[in-house]
Amino acid sequence: MAILALHGGAGGDGPWRGMTALDPQRLACMERILHDLGPRLEAGEINALEAVTLAVESMEDEPLYNAGRGSVLAADERVYMDASIMQGSDQAAGSVVNVESTRHPIRAAHLLLKEGWPVMLNAAAADAFAEKNGLEQVDLDWLKTDLRQAQWAKWHNEKSRPGSTDEDDEAVLDHDLGEAEGMGTVGAVALDSSGNLAAATSTGGMTGKPIGRIGDTPIIGAGTWCDPSVAVSCTGVGEAFIRTCAAHEVAVQLRNDSGNLAKACDTVLEMVKPMGGRGGIIAISRSGEVALPFQTMLMYRGLWRAGRITTGIGNEEYSSKPTTLGQNTGLP
Amino acid sequence: MAILALHGGAGGDGPWRGMTALDPQRLACMERILHDLGPRLEAGEINALEAVTLAVESMEDEPLYNAGRGSVLAADERVYMDASIMQGSDQAAGSVVNVESTRHPIRAAHLLLKEGWPVMLNAAAADAFAEKNGLEQVDLDWLKTDLRQAQWAKWHNEKSRPGSTDEDDEAVLDHDLGEAEGMGTVGAVALDSSGNLAAATSTGGMTGKPIGRIGDTPIIGAGTWCDPSVAVSCTGVGEAFIRTCAAHEVAVQLRNDSGNLAKACDTVLEMVKPMGGRGGIIAISRSGEVALPFQTMLMYRGLWRAGRITTGIGNEEYSSKPTTLGQNTGLP
Repeated sequence: MAILALHGGAGGDGPWRGMTALDPQRLACMERILHDLGPRLEAGEINALEAVTLAVESMEDEPLYNAGRGSVLAADERVYMDASIMQGSDQAAGSVVNVESTRHPIRAAHLLLKEGWPVMLNAAAADAFAEKNGLEQVDLDWLKTDLRQAQWAKWHNEKSRPGSTDEDDEAVLDHDLGEAEGMGTVGAVALDSSGNLAAATSTGGMTGKPIGRIGDTPIIGAGTWCDPSVAVSCTGVGEAFIRTCAAHEVAVQLRNDSGNLAKACDTVLEMVKPMGGRGGIIAISRSGEVALPFQTMLMYRGLWRAGRITTGIGNEEYSSKPTTLGQNTGLP
Repeated sequence: MAILALHGGAGGDGPWRGMTALDPQRLACMERILHDLGPRLEAGEINALEAVTLAVESMEDEPLYNAGRGSVLAADERVYMDASIMQGSDQAAGSVVNVESTRHPIRAAHLLLKEGWPVMLNAAAADAFAEKNGLEQVDLDWLKTDLRQAQWAKWHNEKSRPGSTDEDDEAVLDHDLGEAEGMGTVGAVALDSSGNLAAATSTGGMTGKPIGRIGDTPIIGAGTWCDPSVAVSCTGVGEAFIRTCAAHEVAVQLRNDSGNLAKACDTVLEMVKPMGGRGGIIAISRSGEVALPFQTMLMYRGLWRAGRITTGIGNEEYSSKPTTLGQNTGLP
C-alpha cells in the first residue's frame, strides 16, 4: 500500500463560492503530480522521501502556488522562501530558511537531510550550499510573476491608505485576484510500499511579510513532522503553528489516541485557534490512515491511494481516473 | 512559591575531573543572578518572563558563557547568535536567528514576544528590529574574546591537519582551555509567585560552525518550550534536539505521566540519544517540581528556591547563603 497526499495551502473565510478562473490550473498541477508519482511510489520505484520531494518541486514550479516560482513578495518586493523535509524511519530532517535564488528549496532541504548535519541552513548560506551541490539557481525576475506583483501592489496601496488594517488588505486581495488570503503554501506526505513515511513543506510566506520573518514552514515540529508513526505537513497562520508545535502535536495526539488520525488532526487545529491561527493539515499514519482537514474556507488538496486520484478545494471532492488527466481540468 | 533555574550549557565525556581555573567565575555569575533575581521574583516585583530575560541577559554579558559577549566564533571568525523565549500563560513566543550586533539577543526575542507577531525574525532584520526598539548594538570586536579567538584558532589548525576529525578538535579544546566542548549555551526557566511560567535560551552556537547553521536554541519546541504546565530550556547537540522536538516533548511526557517531571526529562534525553545527541535540560512544572538532568560530563546549573541557592557543574552540588556571595567563589 502506497499513499501520496498534497496540499496547496489553506485560507479564506465563510462558505466556499466555487472555483475561480485560476483554480483549474492549480488542481491540474496536483493531478499531474499524483498521476506521475502515485504509480511510481506504489511500484517501489521511488520511496516516500523522494516522492514528497518531487511532488513539492513540481508545486514550487507551478506559479499559482506560493512556493518557488510564484512565491508571494515580501515587504521589499523580494522573494524569501522557506522549506523543510523529514523522514520517519530515523527522523532525519533538513530545512532551509529565507533562500532567494534556489529554484527548488525543498531539494536543498532534502540534500541537508541526506548530509545529516546541520539540519537547518539560513539564507545566503543555504543558497550557496544548494549551488555547490548542483541545484539550479534562478534570478528574482524568474521567481516573480505578474500575479504576485499585482498582489504586492494592492497590499502596498492598502497599507498606505489612512485607517487601513491588515484585514482590509486581505479582503481586497481575495476578491480582485481570485485568491484566498494568498497563502498557497505547498506540502506533501507519503507512505511508500516499504512502509516508510516522509513529509515536506515549502512556501514563499505571505504578501508584504516583514523582511526576515520566519513562519512555521521551515520549523521541524511546527510546519513539518515525520516519525515512524505519522507524516504531517501544515499550512496556515504560521505563528500559531509555531506556538503550538502543531505538526509534532499531531504525532503526540495520535500516540495518545492510537489509530485515530482524523481526531488527532482536529484536536490540533482546535489548539491552534486560540493563538489566532487557522489552517489545514495533511497527514498519513503508518497504518495508512489519511486525514486532510482544514478549518478555513478552502484547502487545495490532492490524494493518490490505490490507483485513485481525488482532489478538492472547498468541501467538495473531485475524482478522476488518471487516464482522463488534462482533458477537462483547464490545463493549458 | 517562586523558582528560578539556570543552565550554562552541558557537554563533555567521562567522569567530571573537578573545577577548572575558569569555573569559579561561571558559578559566581549564576550565584549573582540567583541572589539578585530570586527575592525579586518571590516578592512579585518581577514576573517569570522578566526573570528569565534578566537572567539570560546577565549570562549573555558573562564572557565565559557562549552567548552574547563571549559567543564562540563561526567558521568565518564572526559571531552569529540565536535566542528564543516563551511564556506559559498564552504560549506567546519570540525568537531571533543569527543576529550579529545585538548585545542581548534574548531581549530582542522578548520584544518580539511582546509585539505578538511575527514570532521569529532573522539575522539583519532582527538586529534592525532590536535597534529600532532601543536595544544596544555592539561591534564584533566587543563580542569576541581572546578565549574564543584561541578556541577558533585551535579548531582551525586541527581542521587543517590531515586526517583530523571533529572529535579530535573537541578533545584539544577541552583540555587546553578548560572547556567542555565549548558549548556553554545559556538558559533560564522560572515560576513566579502568580503561578506564571517562562523559559528562555540563548547561544552563540559552536566553534567553527558553518555560516548559516541554525541549531535548536531559537526553535520553539526544540530548544525552548513553555505552556501552562511546564517551562523547558535545553542545551546540547542542537540537531538531535530539533529532530526530537525535545523541549515540547518534555511537556508531552509530563502531560502523559502527570507530576513526574524528572522522569519526563530523562525520557526525552533517552529519545535524543539515538539521533547522536547528548545534553541537558532544565525544567520547572506548574506545581513547582524542578528537574536539571544532563547526560554529559557536566552541566553548569543554578537554582533559587525558597531563599536557597544551589549551583553545580558535575554531579556535585554547592549550596550557598546569598549573604556569602562573592567571598569564596573566585569572583574577581
